[in-house]
Amino acid sequence: MFDTAATTASLLRQAPVFRDLDSSALDGLTAIAEQRDVPEGTILCQQGVPADQLLVLLRGQVALENASVSGVSAVVDVIAPGGHFMLSTVLSGLPSLMSARAVTPVRLIGIAASGLRDLLPREPSLAAALLRAEALDFGAMVRQVCDLKLRTTAQRLGSYLLTLSDKTADNSVALRLPFDKRLLAARLGCRQENLSRAFAALRDLGVETHGARVILHDIARLRDYALPDQVPAATI
Amino acid sequence: MFDTAATTASLLRQAPVFRDLDSSALDGLTAIAEQRDVPEGTILCQQGVPADQLLVLLRGQVALENASVSGVSAVVDVIAPGGHFMLSTVLSGLPSLMSARAVTPVRLIGIAASGLRDLLPREPSLAAALLRAEALDFGAMVRQVCDLKLRTTAQRLGSYLLTLSDKTADNSVALRLPFDKRLLAARLGCRQENLSRAFAALRDLGVETHGARVILHDIARLRDYALPDQVPAATI
Repeated sequence: MFDTAATTASLLRQAPVFRDLDSSALDGLTAIAEQRDVPEGTILCQQGVPADQLLVLLRGQVALENASVSGVSAVVDVIAPGGHFMLSTVLSGLPSLMSARAVTPVRLIGIAASGLRDLLPREPSLAAALLRAEALDFGAMVRQVCDLKLRTTAQRLGSYLLTLSDKTADNSVALRLPFDKRLLAARLGCRQENLSRAFAALRDLGVETHGARVILHDIARLRDYALPDQVPAATI
Repeated sequence: MFDTAATTASLLRQAPVFRDLDSSALDGLTAIAEQRDVPEGTILCQQGVPADQLLVLLRGQVALENASVSGVSAVVDVIAPGGHFMLSTVLSGLPSLMSARAVTPVRLIGIAASGLRDLLPREPSLAAALLRAEALDFGAMVRQVCDLKLRTTAQRLGSYLLTLSDKTADNSVALRLPFDKRLLAARLGCRQENLSRAFAALRDLGVETHGARVILHDIARLRDYALPDQVPAATI
């Protein structure tokens, strides 16, 4: 997605969250932004602590995780290139509910939290961009809450596979899971053995799997079963 | 919570979301706000449609619901007096994922969405208040996602009862469920029969119920079982 040889300013401009900034706001952001690379496994932000940077992912994957008292972790979301994270804790200054962990080697841009908060009152286009980004982030969580309250694990898996295939107009598609099955199970909110059972349940609906490769043979039928949200993605 | 004979300006000031507004922003809001009463059952905003007002609840209860294609509804949240709703759809201008339904007779303040969006670039204290409110709303949804991914129904019920009792320093407390068990089951994301089973499972942990009255005889023990989030409520 990103030409990582580009300048920080042009990389920021390519991130959906900053697409509509005016040039003064973009200059202000660039002055407090830095690119960096981190190895797989790095904890980028810690649960229970306010984040000191807003992070924009250029390359790799980042898992947002919440560890319970018992030590079990929920994967709240997995961020893909172009996505941002830690926005809500940066804007509120409050401790984060989630840790951010690099699932792969990662390249990202960090924007200083205090500098960002100083910029906001002077840059209405930045405030507007972040108000909108927060609204979309909220919508993504509402979708998950509905998914978890309304759907079985197999339906959630089906809905997830359908989101990976939503660019195709055909009734069948071959695709690749973007991350491993352990992480997929955690993201869907089930144990690994339940994920295997869910894949088995979807086999009768034309879902064929070979490791990370998945073929959906009958998208219409899978849609009838999984009942994914009919509201378009740009809905909160 | 609210003295509903007060002026709209002073009622707005009492709502947590607008607590830190400067007087110019408060005047601007008051000019586009109106109080109204609606009967139980009123649909205040419709799923799939952008909301035309940001709503602040003065009295009663409002359920935020998402209906799936199959017609089954998830209760995403139940708003209590002092709370606001429809913020994300008002700020983004995008269709709402949720309907808002008055569960009881309701008194509220409606703030015109377009007027609010016009005010934002001129009123940095309003933008700051809404950026923070969105961050807290996001955090509430993240908490629910974690709850649904990590905890059993009985643990979720236990955690919920503990939030109702969080003002007490004692190890036991008598409390009243703020809404009926049908709505409570939907809010927790389970069927009514599972809620009954969850109450039964908690009986051995000192949770006694008589209709809407609930006595927690051993808060410490319930906490050990339900493992509620240890991060304080003012955490996102």
